[in-house]
Amino acid sequence: MKRHLISAADLSRDDALLILDTADELARISDRSIKKLPTLRGRTVVNLFFEDSTRTRISFEAAAKRLSADVINFSAKGSSVSKGESLKDTALTLEAMGADAVVIRHGASGAPHRLAGWVRGSVVNAGDGTHEHPTQALLDAFTMRRRLGSLEGRRVTVVGDILHSRVARSNVLLLSTLGAEVTLVAPPTLLPVSVGSWPCEVSYDLDSVLPKSDVVMMLRVQRERMNAAFFPTEREYSRRYGLDRERFARLKEDAVVMHPGPMNRGMEIAAEVADSPRSTIVEQVANGVTTRMAVLYLLLGGADLGGEDQ
Amino acid sequence: MKRHLISAADLSRDDALLILDTADELARISDRSIKKLPTLRGRTVVNLFFEDSTRTRISFEAAAKRLSADVINFSAKGSSVSKGESLKDTALTLEAMGADAVVIRHGASGAPHRLAGWVRGSVVNAGDGTHEHPTQALLDAFTMRRRLGSLEGRRVTVVGDILHSRVARSNVLLLSTLGAEVTLVAPPTLLPVSVGSWPCEVSYDLDSVLPKSDVVMMLRVQRERMNAAFFPTEREYSRRYGLDRERFARLKEDAVVMHPGPMNRGMEIAAEVADSPRSTIVEQVANGVTTRMAVLYLLLGGADLGGEDQ
Amino acid sequence: MKRHLISAADLSRDDALLILDTADELARISDRSIKKLPTLRGRTVVNLFFEDSTRTRISFEAAAKRLSADVINFSAKGSSVSKGESLKDTALTLEAMGADAVVIRHGASGAPHRLAGWVRGSVVNAGDGTHEHPTQALLDAFTMRRRLGSLEGRRVTVVGDILHSRVARSNVLLLSTLGAEVTLVAPPTLLPVSVGSWPCEVSYDLDSVLPKSDVVMMLRVQRERMNAAFFPTEREYSRRYGLDRERFARLKEDAVVMHPGPMNRGMEIAAEVADSPRSTIVEQVANGVTTRMAVLYLLLGGADLGGEDQ
Repeated sequence: MKRHLISAADLSRDDALLILDTADELARISDRSIKKLPTLRGRTVVNLFFEDSTRTRISFEAAAKRLSADVINFSAKGSSVSKGESLKDTALTLEAMGADAVVIRHGASGAPHRLAGWVRGSVVNAGDGTHEHPTQALLDAFTMRRRLGSLEGRRVTVVGDILHSRVARSNVLLLSTLGAEVTLVAPPTLLPVSVGSWPCEVSYDLDSVLPKSDVVMMLRVQRERMNAAFFPTEREYSRRYGLDRERFARLKEDAVVMHPGPMNRGMEIAAEVADSPRSTIVEQVANGVTTRMAVLYLLLGGADLGGEDQ
Repeated sequence: MKRHLISAADLSRDDALLILDTADELARISDRSIKKLPTLRGRTVVNLFFEDSTRTRISFEAAAKRLSADVINFSAKGSSVSKGESLKDTALTLEAMGADAVVIRHGASGAPHRLAGWVRGSVVNAGDGTHEHPTQALLDAFTMRRRLGSLEGRRVTVVGDILHSRVARSNVLLLSTLGAEVTLVAPPTLLPVSVGSWPCEVSYDLDSVLPKSDVVMMLRVQRERMNAAFFPTEREYSRRYGLDRERFARLKEDAVVMHPGPMNRGMEIAAEVADSPRSTIVEQVANGVTTRMAVLYLLLGGADLGGEDQ
Repeated sequence: MKRHLISAADLSRDDALLILDTADELARISDRSIKKLPTLRGRTVVNLFFEDSTRTRISFEAAAKRLSADVINFSAKGSSVSKGESLKDTALTLEAMGADAVVIRHGASGAPHRLAGWVRGSVVNAGDGTHEHPTQALLDAFTMRRRLGSLEGRRVTVVGDILHSRVARSNVLLLSTLGAEVTLVAPPTLLPVSVGSWPCEVSYDLDSVLPKSDVVMMLRVQRERMNAAFFPTEREYSRRYGLDRERFARLKEDAVVMHPGPMNRGMEIAAEVADSPRSTIVEQVANGVTTRMAVLYLLLGGADLGGEDQ
């Protein structure tokens, strides 16, 4: 495995399976109610967040702490970064302070890649612009595998604003590596022009795709983008692309419903669908911690798993 | 004891005494300069603060860390909560991330109660709207007991803006459970209409109550509420309800003066009263950490006390 | 050594050498890839920051955590401090919560000194107004000593806005204690009137000083102060006081270039100078953590060095 996790595209099938298998092992250890492992004791993980994302930051923080790493939160707002310090100088600073891993969330696509060129530690992309969010894709794949078994040949439908979604892009890349067949469903104005070169199908008609899907992943609607030119109104969007009770009823019996959160209940997903036993939304959060533990463990080369914290 | 601590009203006399006795034991351990106990190692305490309250947050953080728990601070400002995520989804997220306890401060009365309906972990109310602040009442009772011995039959006078004070309400409930006699003193416009049903006396005349009091607890004046209709001016308030040097001189010899902080020196309490040896204001802060350790320890069922952290 | 570190002037030559030697020892331990020491386990370090300074805060946080102390970050913005709580009450609160050390950054010169009068724990000045920043001076001296050996008789030139620089003042005091000869170079309007009483030389002509310097320390230009009356324009400043490629070429062969960061590349220092092997800018950051570990260790009287964290 590489030293960094920047893009789902960097993960070979073997890499991805190693992460998922490690997460499985960590989940088993956690089920034996061993909640804290000593494997990363003495290591420092820095959460370098240029954008607010409390959920993702907390997930990485919980993951690192359960491996006994020290965690330092660096919110770039109000820091010298906002005084004009370059990303490079920030990187060299964190490096010099002894960061073994830097988890970075940044508004600009490509920032984690540039960061990786400047530090000896590991860089983990926690979301960069509209580009990628590889640990989200890993936790989604982990969740699907736990529900459905192997992803080989499974049909995954991703619905929503693909154009602005790093979650969609990372999922398409990882799922195709793992042998699943992905279909994107979105209004034409919310698909990137490059989508023709992605390893997936595209459809504008949700109802024709749903009955064949093993997984339906609803993306969060950014309400602030709605009602603008080229974007449908909220009502129109919900009617054509929302997963409401009627559509839910037409899903295959063992199909699962996913959402990266936070949800707009009643908009892209009906409340009762979100709360149904076939929804994995809460599992995804728990699996996020487990999967991020696996990623940090593998990147930082921690000590053997299996022992309990002393 | 119940799994949550939402309201002082939920505490039976035995519950309350158990917490106070446990805090006593923790204080004794700490006096032997054992500062950190391993009892909650591997447990995660989340501080979920929808309102700023650095003092209360730090007190819980210090308490949890001295018990070796991992602490994750979640300031709800700027988080997905402010993007419209419901409290329920936040609760499910924290639950899924493995929070063993959620310490919640919220502007809406009742929020901790609702949260408790959604999570398996323990919920600790760190202040909800104008409703309750039970750990403040516990630390106050702990402080009184250390100074005065049993609270049975002790006369406690609480002075100030009762209407908006969760501290006052929680104190009245807990102190009456512990057998103390509470008198509230406030301008009529700053008493809740329901006060007639509270287990306490009410007076508008501070000077007649003071000579009989064993404890005088001054509440913080919210200056931003002053000078509004129905509210006395600052000068008027201070003259009629402030604990100045003259009033302090008329207290019983062994009476103690309390304040939950932060104080407005010179407004509701004179600086020299605040700094007198009969003031417990600094002790209350120290006792806050000890009492919250006891609460977390009892709710989370930690390992035996008494051992030192290895 | 004293209980607090408020000013570089408080450090005797023996104190300063003890800190630097301890930092050397900590660096050697860290080179053996022991990253975490158990010496301050159970101790609590509070970072009390009234001004944003993510770099300094993180450096102290990393230092304390590597010594196994618990760290509580207290950003005074949005806290009860901003509701008008006095520094004294904040101090008493932290004291009562059991802070063994308070690291304070404050906009007012003298605030750490006042704080030290109110608490039993140790106070470390992490920058107060335009007054002092003693740990910056210590890490700078540590960096020089690692590059150049003893500082006795070494010529150190500090260039920039001396008037507003706590870094310059602390460096002048500490370096003269350690036997170095300091020359300040600045526009006349950016020198304090008291500079005549400082133990150093003053010059307005950078080019005449550079060829004799063993160390050239460039200070950060506060762009918001530029272009005001009495202050040169950015272009004028850069031309007369910037360390550009030409000036760099005229330095002694073994001279080193320092900067406390964050830099304005292209303004007070050329990018290629900042990145040259004779620049210590990244080392300074790493040495900052090591030096602050030494300070915390010595002030808090930690257990013996040398053992690994269990």
